[in-house]
Amino acid sequence: MTPQKQSSPSLPSASSVERSLRQDALAIFQAALAAADPYAATLAHLPKTVGSVYVVGAGKAAAAMARAVEKVYGNRIQAGVVVTKYGHAQPLQHIRCLEASHPVPDEAGVHAAHEIAQICLSAQETDLIICLISGGASALLPFPAQPITLEEKQTTTRLLLSCGANIQELNTVRKHLSSIKGGLLADLAYPAKLHTLILSDVIGDSLDVIGSGPTVPDTSTYEEAWQILYRYGLIAKIPASVRDRLEQGCNKELPETPKPGTRIFDRVKNTLIGSNRLSLKAAQATAKSLGYKPLLLSTSLDGEAREAARFFASMAREARATGNPARPPLALLAGGETTVALSAHPGLGGRNQEMALAAAIGIDGLPATCFLAAGTDGTDGPTEAAGAYATGSTLARGAKLDLDPQDFLARNDSYHYFQPLKDLFLPGPTGTNVMDLYLMLLR
Amino acid sequence: MTPQKQSSPSLPSASSVERSLRQDALAIFQAALAAADPYAATLAHLPKTVGSVYVVGAGKAAAAMARAVEKVYGNRIQAGVVVTKYGHAQPLQHIRCLEASHPVPDEAGVHAAHEIAQICLSAQETDLIICLISGGASALLPFPAQPITLEEKQTTTRLLLSCGANIQELNTVRKHLSSIKGGLLADLAYPAKLHTLILSDVIGDSLDVIGSGPTVPDTSTYEEAWQILYRYGLIAKIPASVRDRLEQGCNKELPETPKPGTRIFDRVKNTLIGSNRLSLKAAQATAKSLGYKPLLLSTSLDGEAREAARFFASMAREARATGNPARPPLALLAGGETTVALSAHPGLGGRNQEMALAAAIGIDGLPATCFLAAGTDGTDGPTEAAGAYATGSTLARGAKLDLDPQDFLARNDSYHYFQPLKDLFLPGPTGTNVMDLYLMLLR
Repeated sequence: MTPQKQSSPSLPSASSVERSLRQDALAIFQAALAAADPYAATLAHLPKTVGSVYVVGAGKAAAAMARAVEKVYGNRIQAGVVVTKYGHAQPLQHIRCLEASHPVPDEAGVHAAHEIAQICLSAQETDLIICLISGGASALLPFPAQPITLEEKQTTTRLLLSCGANIQELNTVRKHLSSIKGGLLADLAYPAKLHTLILSDVIGDSLDVIGSGPTVPDTSTYEEAWQILYRYGLIAKIPASVRDRLEQGCNKELPETPKPGTRIFDRVKNTLIGSNRLSLKAAQATAKSLGYKPLLLSTSLDGEAREAARFFASMAREARATGNPARPPLALLAGGETTVALSAHPGLGGRNQEMALAAAIGIDGLPATCFLAAGTDGTDGPTEAAGAYATGSTLARGAKLDLDPQDFLARNDSYHYFQPLKDLFLPGPTGTNVMDLYLMLLR
Repeated sequence: MTPQKQSSPSLPSASSVERSLRQDALAIFQAALAAADPYAATLAHLPKTVGSVYVVGAGKAAAAMARAVEKVYGNRIQAGVVVTKYGHAQPLQHIRCLEASHPVPDEAGVHAAHEIAQICLSAQETDLIICLISGGASALLPFPAQPITLEEKQTTTRLLLSCGANIQELNTVRKHLSSIKGGLLADLAYPAKLHTLILSDVIGDSLDVIGSGPTVPDTSTYEEAWQILYRYGLIAKIPASVRDRLEQGCNKELPETPKPGTRIFDRVKNTLIGSNRLSLKAAQATAKSLGYKPLLLSTSLDGEAREAARFFASMAREARATGNPARPPLALLAGGETTVALSAHPGLGGRNQEMALAAAIGIDGLPATCFLAAGTDGTDGPTEAAGAYATGSTLARGAKLDLDPQDFLARNDSYHYFQPLKDLFLPGPTGTNVMDLYLMLLR
């Protein structure tokens, strides 16, 4: 009989080293979250100004960001409108907080976009407009260029998506069908001073991609938008209003979106106040203060979740065996957003829980090793967990409960593997989103 | 018109920085190869002895290793037999070099195994036996335990493979059906002194796995072998001779394979003389001497080739953008062996060429960045290439030839993507195999 079989039938517990590693992982995650807190990040980046200000904004974090603006400027706010997702509004004193639909835009969003455009138009050269952009802003701020309707714009988007168009292609087309995106909000605000604070939820933090860059120079053209639709064979399928607009644009009958170097941008400042990278930097600093050598590997990790986990696990094995790429105590940090190719009959889980399960298989038996994958928004797939912990003892503890990790992984059922082990990571909704955090700790 | 369209129609060339990076990558690969050279590695590790020696050995590198033994001991060699793959023999003076079938064993292998066993049996306590083990040794040294026939043993192996048994399970069964594996060659050699030099071609370099560990203590048991066959429902399907032997073993009617701590191993020394890890260390040193900060990430990288490439590329992007995990000049090094899930109608390529193609997509546009993935045996899939180079300009150069990288990747046709770009890596057969080398260089 093996020692395992003689042990108590109660839930087997991780070693004290593993428990301490989990605590460290939690502290590092919390530091990453704190750096992405919309309220705190906005407070830290608002410009010092003595005059009056106008406030506009859109995104899932718009309410918390607006609250910070009110805290700093109070009744110096002349007018303000922000729009957030249904259910995400907060009571504000000087700024109106509207709600609209996300991810599919609706007329409430169109209404909000018009109000926001109006504020920007009304501001004078001596005024300062604060613009607050966070994840979801693109859907929450729909402003189809007349005479295109919201429905026609959405039809175009759907057609592109069904052809497998990527986000760059999608944005190139969308920016040229909008009256507010691709730098056009900055155009409306000119000659007022405009300072945009941006919380990024996209890989690479391209400012012109976040919320389709309403205050950021646009490098794409009508010609390119047309080429994209042509390449996918959609010219005949898109609504006539869309085709007409792009044709007019190509024929120079419409002005292009504002390009880099345009003088309107002399009055514009775009500041990235939160992002996966900024959160990872904070995580790195905390890992260091906890005594780990922190190696920040990537803030744009993508691809299949279980495969990224294999790479992580192989690095943990190397560090344990040879002290490469650095000797433990070591923290390997990364961020990004992976994907999961679902099996025919998937169970319950999410990309981060699945990554943790694959990591558990890869680090099986390694002493003093802990992996955490978690969504910074506090969610992961259709579960209440944000991710899960994996340690060198996960598989042994699972085996005592007759859990076969390969079987759960094959069925995309990571949630039900980690739940009985009490290894789910359950921070609850965090009010922000800077994608996912991946953390391998070795003591 | 874009600048690309105005350029000459001849083959576009990489920048001079990229050319210099490729030269560095080649130098680093060659250092890794030199460390795994069977002749040189054997020369460097042969024990100093004044007496006479016996020589046995098996593997694809057996001839080159035996040549080194002859160079050092010359006519002090009393007797010697090594067995290598058909076509791999070399003329030797004091050691007989036999040939047998690989990867499917044949009777020539059985004959060689008997000769080798005979030499070990004949050596006396004062004698030294040098044993040379390299990749392929397991298939080249078949010695089914009587009355099991080679065919019956192979049937058992095939049944296990068709059930999805892993290499550990396979080895546990095979070792208990053999008269030479799982430490039994050491048993035959006892009480002579036995020194085994091992060139590893497996992930993790477990000495008991390489060639099924003929001179290495075995931790597996008859009981476990039986359980594995039972679990896969094979007890009724395996040949009667196999079932009988395992039953007798479980009933203690047969001696177990020699376990760790057995006194026969007091006379045995097993030395790893070449491996992916030892080659990576040499690569690391060369990268350093060329001015790069070398980070050795892993020597057990596995999983889907294109996914591993994504991780590599995301690290390159991070290093370029933020100087993490270290500031360029930077060399990210790893080793292992990836796999490729083939599409319905695969083109031509190999795991390393496919990894390079996915890396080219991931590092597209990055300046002064070069990736090399290559098999240390000089081959990759059914091509004459060992792998391929990818640089930040690969996609741009491919586009000028109308090559769509996503299309070639989707069709597993990496060879035909890199061939017209002249970016295939073509070192030719190297005479050794310590798996694959992956190298990301940033200046």
